[in-house]
Amino acid sequence: MTETVADIVNAHRAGRADPAETVARAYARLRAYDDPALFITVRDEAEAIAEARALAAAGGADKPLFGVPVAVKDNIDVAGLPTTAACPAFAYTPQRDATAVARLRAAGAIVIGKTNLDQFATGLVGVRSPYGTPRNPHDAALVPGGSSSGSAVAVAAGIVPLALGTDTAGSGRVPAGLNNIVGLKPSLGLVPATGVVPACRSLDTISVFALTTDDAHLALAAMAGVDAADAFSRAFPPSRPGPLAAGLRIGVPRHADRVFFGDARAETAYLHALEIAAALGATLVDVDMAPFYATARLLYDGPWVAERFAAVGEFMARHPDAVHPVTNEIVLSGSRPTAVDAFQAFYKLQALRVQARETLGRLDMLMVPTAPAAYTVAELEAEPIRLNSNLGTYTNFVNLLDMAGLAVPAAIAEDGTPFGVTLLAPAGRDAALASFGRVLHARTGLPLGALGVPQPELRPLPATAAEGEFVLAAVGAHLTGLPLNHELTGLGGRYLETTRTAADYRLFALPGTTPPKPGLLRVAAGSGGPIEVELWALTAESFGRFVAAVPSPLSIGNATLADGRVVKCFLVEAEAVAGARDITAAGGWRAFLGKTS
Amino acid sequence: MTETVADIVNAHRAGRADPAETVARAYARLRAYDDPALFITVRDEAEAIAEARALAAAGGADKPLFGVPVAVKDNIDVAGLPTTAACPAFAYTPQRDATAVARLRAAGAIVIGKTNLDQFATGLVGVRSPYGTPRNPHDAALVPGGSSSGSAVAVAAGIVPLALGTDTAGSGRVPAGLNNIVGLKPSLGLVPATGVVPACRSLDTISVFALTTDDAHLALAAMAGVDAADAFSRAFPPSRPGPLAAGLRIGVPRHADRVFFGDARAETAYLHALEIAAALGATLVDVDMAPFYATARLLYDGPWVAERFAAVGEFMARHPDAVHPVTNEIVLSGSRPTAVDAFQAFYKLQALRVQARETLGRLDMLMVPTAPAAYTVAELEAEPIRLNSNLGTYTNFVNLLDMAGLAVPAAIAEDGTPFGVTLLAPAGRDAALASFGRVLHARTGLPLGALGVPQPELRPLPATAAEGEFVLAAVGAHLTGLPLNHELTGLGGRYLETTRTAADYRLFALPGTTPPKPGLLRVAAGSGGPIEVELWALTAESFGRFVAAVPSPLSIGNATLADGRVVKCFLVEAEAVAGARDITAAGGWRAFLGKTS
Repeated sequence: MTETVADIVNAHRAGRADPAETVARAYARLRAYDDPALFITVRDEAEAIAEARALAAAGGADKPLFGVPVAVKDNIDVAGLPTTAACPAFAYTPQRDATAVARLRAAGAIVIGKTNLDQFATGLVGVRSPYGTPRNPHDAALVPGGSSSGSAVAVAAGIVPLALGTDTAGSGRVPAGLNNIVGLKPSLGLVPATGVVPACRSLDTISVFALTTDDAHLALAAMAGVDAADAFSRAFPPSRPGPLAAGLRIGVPRHADRVFFGDARAETAYLHALEIAAALGATLVDVDMAPFYATARLLYDGPWVAERFAAVGEFMARHPDAVHPVTNEIVLSGSRPTAVDAFQAFYKLQALRVQARETLGRLDMLMVPTAPAAYTVAELEAEPIRLNSNLGTYTNFVNLLDMAGLAVPAAIAEDGTPFGVTLLAPAGRDAALASFGRVLHARTGLPLGALGVPQPELRPLPATAAEGEFVLAAVGAHLTGLPLNHELTGLGGRYLETTRTAADYRLFALPGTTPPKPGLLRVAAGSGGPIEVELWALTAESFGRFVAAVPSPLSIGNATLADGRVVKCFLVEAEAVAGARDITAAGGWRAFLGKTS
Repeated sequence: MTETVADIVNAHRAGRADPAETVARAYARLRAYDDPALFITVRDEAEAIAEARALAAAGGADKPLFGVPVAVKDNIDVAGLPTTAACPAFAYTPQRDATAVARLRAAGAIVIGKTNLDQFATGLVGVRSPYGTPRNPHDAALVPGGSSSGSAVAVAAGIVPLALGTDTAGSGRVPAGLNNIVGLKPSLGLVPATGVVPACRSLDTISVFALTTDDAHLALAAMAGVDAADAFSRAFPPSRPGPLAAGLRIGVPRHADRVFFGDARAETAYLHALEIAAALGATLVDVDMAPFYATARLLYDGPWVAERFAAVGEFMARHPDAVHPVTNEIVLSGSRPTAVDAFQAFYKLQALRVQARETLGRLDMLMVPTAPAAYTVAELEAEPIRLNSNLGTYTNFVNLLDMAGLAVPAAIAEDGTPFGVTLLAPAGRDAALASFGRVLHARTGLPLGALGVPQPELRPLPATAAEGEFVLAAVGAHLTGLPLNHELTGLGGRYLETTRTAADYRLFALPGTTPPKPGLLRVAAGSGGPIEVELWALTAESFGRFVAAVPSPLSIGNATLADGRVVKCFLVEAEAVAGARDITAAGGWRAFLGKTS
């Protein structure tokens, strides 16, 4: 079974398969799928195979995507192949790869073609293209989802294990949900957008479709990083997925705010996903979605549609017959709002951001349905605008609120309809979403895409600090799910593992601390107890900032773990525990809180 | 001589003057200045004096602005006084103080009235008000500068030592330059704008006029901090001005980019200011100003004028005769740009921000003329738009690029015309600008405002860490000249001062340590002794690396110094001092080593 990126790369490295064969297999599967609406341009097969051969001959085995065939949404430039944005009259042939594509290729990926999309990436459905509607491999009657329709189907159908999409309002998530695959929507600016046909330039991001979260993050790691040519690209502290964190606090729409538009399959599937999350140890927290939904309404009722007009409005004015009528109507409406409208919407958005930040500050992430309902092509054709709008319920607010997203499969209904959930957190927390999402996906037991093969066993991720990182043991209010955990995650801290100290420590509940905090005190060897701690990895700078903010009577010293390792750890000044309650017997702060709550 | 805020507060605290007398003096000086164009509303004198008496009676002496009379620009709410924005038909009487005003009053300031301004804060000149043009105390023919004309003149004329302005395009800086006073334009969002009549809401900030930089920063400290009612308010790490840093790199417009519109006085004065900066040890670096000037052009040629329309456009449409014709023309032009224009300008701005960031990343700050030229009222009346625009040459780009600014006096020409320079750095570096600006201003030897009295001697500021730096107290082997000091210097650590802890610590000589080390342990308050420590400044990253390398049984916690400051400090685990020699009596590790060597 070599369906995933990880398997393919391993097979190539071990000599069990050959990049050229793998690329040829992709073309064979593309032919077998036999859907002329899937790709807009298929790259010359011989050329792709030659590139794979040359890569292998040049010793590309240490590249992270060694010989992995990829498909690219046709609003992202690949040198020498036309970029159409699903509008033939708009087509041009770029001489340079988009930065993200160039980085994927440098990492060993082989592009096999350009995939279909809702024209100008305007839509969440996949039916708004003159090249036809890509066939959903789960159910031909179902929409594939869009706008990145072709890329999602190409992955779900097993033609490629990796494909690029774009995501402004949900185009990288909705089709993932409707195809039982992973859709990674990175933080805005994390992957440069140089070489992408803009939709809303201030909100666009390249996205990744893959069969697993780990595969998607391999691609993300290859593409991430500032590009001087993209003024909207941003530097984030490096981070990577790790083991499942204990005690996650996950926000879910409160009952009154759950919207499924009558799709009972979706509602059932969402409840099932919540059960899995709870079974993984997460605490589910009801969230008032009002600020999120109000933000979502701003996206299409507000001035951002003017960005679409700014991108392609002039072209459309010159080519009135070249454009899909629904796309035409939407984009041309972008010429109407004034700059006054724009600023008034920004003021509203700013207030909504403050509200959303407050909610998100109390949580590790949100978990929402990826799409509230699944529609058929026939239904969409009958109501092209309203049903498309419904599909964006849980996606439209995300980029306006500067959040990272990860759509993972959650269920397949009895009638075969896929359902996914999306994990959301403030920008920069891509890795934290993946650390949970990969386990959630595994726990669903769902097959890969539409391939009918089981997910590979989850590779245990190393719980070690990377080079340049330092390990800190959290003891009390900084533990996952507790009130100060956000200070670690906000600094890009990466959860490593939950473990225990040696039996040389006593734990005290410090009186008069807000939020309540314990203090860990080293005592004579063996005269204490093992205390549960969480290890977190921080960069030097983040560690410095963190230590600087630690208030008296706590300090950062060294603690010996049960297994003999010595790590940086919260300690308390002995003078401060005079009269404090000794809670060593509870074995840890979380256990103590559990007993007293 | 009690002209400055610092002198007034000290005099009040020492009983050499009384807040009620000081307030009465402000009213007397206001009457003596005899300029009906200066204040739009003068607060009832008896009421202000009663407030000053009540403050003194309530024991307000520990308040940082104890009994300081302040004037407030009339686009900022003061409860019970009308807010006119220099448009009588627009006037309303707020029931609540603007947040900044409430904070100033809570800090002990006494409001004496509301000052004149260019109507709706639109202008840099001070001649666009139906209430007349405040008289420039240096030269009645000269414009006072605007839009915060009345506040700047009130300070320069010695009526109040402190006044609030607002600054969108330069309204808090240009009038400071034309009045030989300090104009502090804080980082956007550092001072909440709740209760301010918006000009461009996304770019507005309350600003401070004072006779000295230290006075201005006293007011800033009182007003800074997030306000839930202002979604644009932002949290910045606390920082305060400190001693002059060595080796500053200061960017100055390269020769071809210096613009004075033929004002030879300004050109000469600027060169003089550069000489002073160089004499203070700064390295002057020629800067290509193209991205800054291109940004400045965006402010009025771009969509931001739509923010002015959003704020007051509807009012103007309803009251066509109530508005100054120039203001009317400018604000109404804000209805013209489309949202498409707005987004296209944002894209340009984003690219310019990247360019500017690159330049600023190599520098500690920029130093530009505050205004390129000084104009007379008669000149402005002849060419109201062009000359106003000229005045914004060095100010218009600042808020669009999210920079902090500090305008300080630099020279007074032979004909009596004041000239100032403005220090600029990315948002959050307000204190760093002040640390240089206060010394620069002192070195000019200029008198205070138009008072004809010399500047007070600069109070030496305690050495503090710069923005982004953290202070660590070294106790033992890391002290200067001792074996581990190189670990601090090797990480770029900067020595600040030698001082002592509070008497709550005991010092122990730790047995078996190599090199020999002491341990500092907090004990019951007062039961220890003061211990000598050295304070060192480290960047976050260096601090992180340093803490990570601290071995057991030492840790980095917090220690209280003899003067009450709390700093990060080496501490020892109590368990490790069992049996160690108590050397508290020596007063410090260095003294102990001296005795034993």
